[in-house]
Amino acid sequence: MQIKLNSPLDMHLHLRDNKMLETVAPLSSYSFAGAVIMPNLVPPITTIEALLEYKKRIIDSTCRDTFEPLMTLFFKDDYKYEFLKEAKKYIFALKLYPSGITTNSEGGVSSMDIESLRETFEAMSELGIPLLVHGETNGFVMDREREFGSVYEQFAKNFPKLKIVMEHITTKESVDLLDRFENLYATITLHHLYITLDDVAGGMLKPHLFCKPIAKRPEDREALLRVALSAHPKVMFGSDSAPHPVDKKESCGCAAGVFTAPIALQALSQLFEKHNSLDNLQAFVSQNAKKIYNLNPPKKEIILEKKPSIVPKSYGDVVPMFADKELSWSIKLVE
Amino acid sequence: MQIKLNSPLDMHLHLRDNKMLETVAPLSSYSFAGAVIMPNLVPPITTIEALLEYKKRIIDSTCRDTFEPLMTLFFKDDYKYEFLKEAKKYIFALKLYPSGITTNSEGGVSSMDIESLRETFEAMSELGIPLLVHGETNGFVMDREREFGSVYEQFAKNFPKLKIVMEHITTKESVDLLDRFENLYATITLHHLYITLDDVAGGMLKPHLFCKPIAKRPEDREALLRVALSAHPKVMFGSDSAPHPVDKKESCGCAAGVFTAPIALQALSQLFEKHNSLDNLQAFVSQNAKKIYNLNPPKKEIILEKKPSIVPKSYGDVVPMFADKELSWSIKLVE
Repeated sequence: MQIKLNSPLDMHLHLRDNKMLETVAPLSSYSFAGAVIMPNLVPPITTIEALLEYKKRIIDSTCRDTFEPLMTLFFKDDYKYEFLKEAKKYIFALKLYPSGITTNSEGGVSSMDIESLRETFEAMSELGIPLLVHGETNGFVMDREREFGSVYEQFAKNFPKLKIVMEHITTKESVDLLDRFENLYATITLHHLYITLDDVAGGMLKPHLFCKPIAKRPEDREALLRVALSAHPKVMFGSDSAPHPVDKKESCGCAAGVFTAPIALQALSQLFEKHNSLDNLQAFVSQNAKKIYNLNPPKKEIILEKKPSIVPKSYGDVVPMFADKELSWSIKLVE
Repeated sequence: MQIKLNSPLDMHLHLRDNKMLETVAPLSSYSFAGAVIMPNLVPPITTIEALLEYKKRIIDSTCRDTFEPLMTLFFKDDYKYEFLKEAKKYIFALKLYPSGITTNSEGGVSSMDIESLRETFEAMSELGIPLLVHGETNGFVMDREREFGSVYEQFAKNFPKLKIVMEHITTKESVDLLDRFENLYATITLHHLYITLDDVAGGMLKPHLFCKPIAKRPEDREALLRVALSAHPKVMFGSDSAPHPVDKKESCGCAAGVFTAPIALQALSQLFEKHNSLDNLQAFVSQNAKKIYNLNPPKKEIILEKKPSIVPKSYGDVVPMFADKELSWSIKLVE
C-alpha cells in the first residue's frame, strides 16, 4: 500500500539557529514543501532585517530541497501600521506569545487586554496579516489552555476580520471554539494526536514527550483526533517539532518540546490508516492550510508506503519521538 | 526560635537494599525514632525469613542510632491465618500494592474484588494486623487515586475491624474519606504538602519531583495542608522518601520517587511555622501515629532551630528534594 501527498506543509515548526538549525532544517525540508517558522529565537525575531537574515540561514541549511520557509515575526503590541505594511512584504504572520509561557517567550505580551492590543490587531486586520497564538494562561498546568479560551473569544469577537490561529491546540474546549467563531482556526501537532499526560507521566516520566502545552486527558485527545482524522476544514497540521539537545531533556530540569519533524508524515500515515482516514490526510497536511491562507506552496510529491522502519535513536544530539521504535510507514520517494 | 520533637516517626519509608540501604538508612535513623519500612524490594518481602534478614541489614546500617524499623510484609491474597498468626510476632503491618502500580509492585494484587481478599482481610482483622494500601487504579494518571476511592469504601465497610491506612494520599476526595469511615486512616508525605503538578511539569519538567501518586491540583494540596497542619487525629506523617540513583532520575525514562528523608523534619518545621501551626507538628510526626497504632517508639529528642541551611546537592548518588536550596530550619541536636 502507498499514498502520495502533494506539497505537505508543517504549519508550526521550530528550527532554532546555528548548529541546531543545520541539524534539523534538512530533516523538515526533506519531506515538507514548506513550514511556518516560529520566531522565538534568543533574541526573538522582531525586525524585518533579523527575519530576512534568519530566512537566509534557513534556506542555506536546506539548499538542495524545494522548501518554502513561511516566516513569522514575534508579536509586539507596539508594532504600528506603517511597520506592518512594510513587513507584510516579507512575513507570513505574527506569532503572539504570552510573556514567559514557553521556551524563549520572555519578551512576549504581558497582558491580553484588548485595548492594549487594539491598534496592532486593527492594523493586522486591515493588512490581512494572520495572528498565530500560543494560547495559555499562567494558571495550573492542566487548565492553562482552557482558561485562555475566553481570550480567544474576546479576540475573535472584537476583531472579526483578523484571522486567528489557535496554535497546537490540546483540549476539547479549543476544538469546540472552532465552530463558534468564523475567524478562529487551529493547528494540531502529531504528538497531541498520539499521547495524553499518561504517556508523559503515567508510567516512568518521559522527558522526550514533555511539551507545552502539556498533553492532556484522554477525552481531549479524542476531540483532537475527531477533527484531525476528519480533516475539519479549520484545522491544519503543525508539528510544533521543537528540538533540544539531549542534555537539556534528560536533566534535572527538562526543556519543553517534542522533536517530530523527521517522522511526522510516517507517523501521521500510520495513525490515519489505523483509523481508516487516509483519504483525509492530504487535506490535513496541506489542502486545508492552502485554503485557509490562500497559499501556493512549491510543488513537491511525497510517496509514503506501508513498510516498517525503525526510527533512529537520535538525529545529531536530538532524540525524536518514537526513538528506536518501529513505525509501519516509510517515505518511499520525494519528488 | 527552636522546637523539640519527641520520637518523630516516618510512617512510610523506602530504604531499598545493599549499597542504597547503606547510603540512606543512616539519614533516616539520624533524625527519626522509627519508620515503617516498605517491602517492595526485588523480590518483594513475602516471608518471615526474608523480613527478618532485611530487618537485620537495616539495623546493621543504622547501628549507632536509636531507630526502630517497623517491618511490613508485601501483601498476598493467599496469606492464611496460621501464617499471619506467626508473622504477627515480627511484623507491623501488611502493605497492599495493586499489581504494577508503582516501583517494584509487579507481584501485587491484580483484583480488588472483596471476595478474593476476604480470607486474608478477616485473618488480619482478627489478629489486629493493619492494612497499608497504595490506593491507585491503573486509570488516567490524574484520576487513579480518586477512582480507588470506591475500593477504600468497600474495604472499610466490609471489614470494619480492619485498620486501613490510605498511604501517601494526594487528593481532597481521599481527605474526605477520613471522616466518613471510622477505620480509615492516612499518611501524608512532605512533598505532597509542598508541590502540585505545576511544580513537576508546569515550568521545566522536574524528574526529582516525579512520584507516584503524582502531585495533583492546587485544591488537592490545600485539602492535604488543612488536615496536616491541624494534625487531624487520623493523619500521620509518612515521607514516602524513595531514593533512586541520579542516573535513573535524569534519563529518558525517569523512575518515580522523591527523596526527602534527610530534610523532612527541617522542611516540615519551615512549613508548619509558615502556617502558624508549629504546635501541631509533634502530633503530625509522632503522637497521632502512636495513638492510632498504640506504638511505644524508642525515646529520642530532636531539637530543630530556625537557622538557614543549604540542602546538599546529593547524598551519595541520590538527589534530595530542595537540593542546593535553602531551608530556614536546621536540626540542632539529636538526643
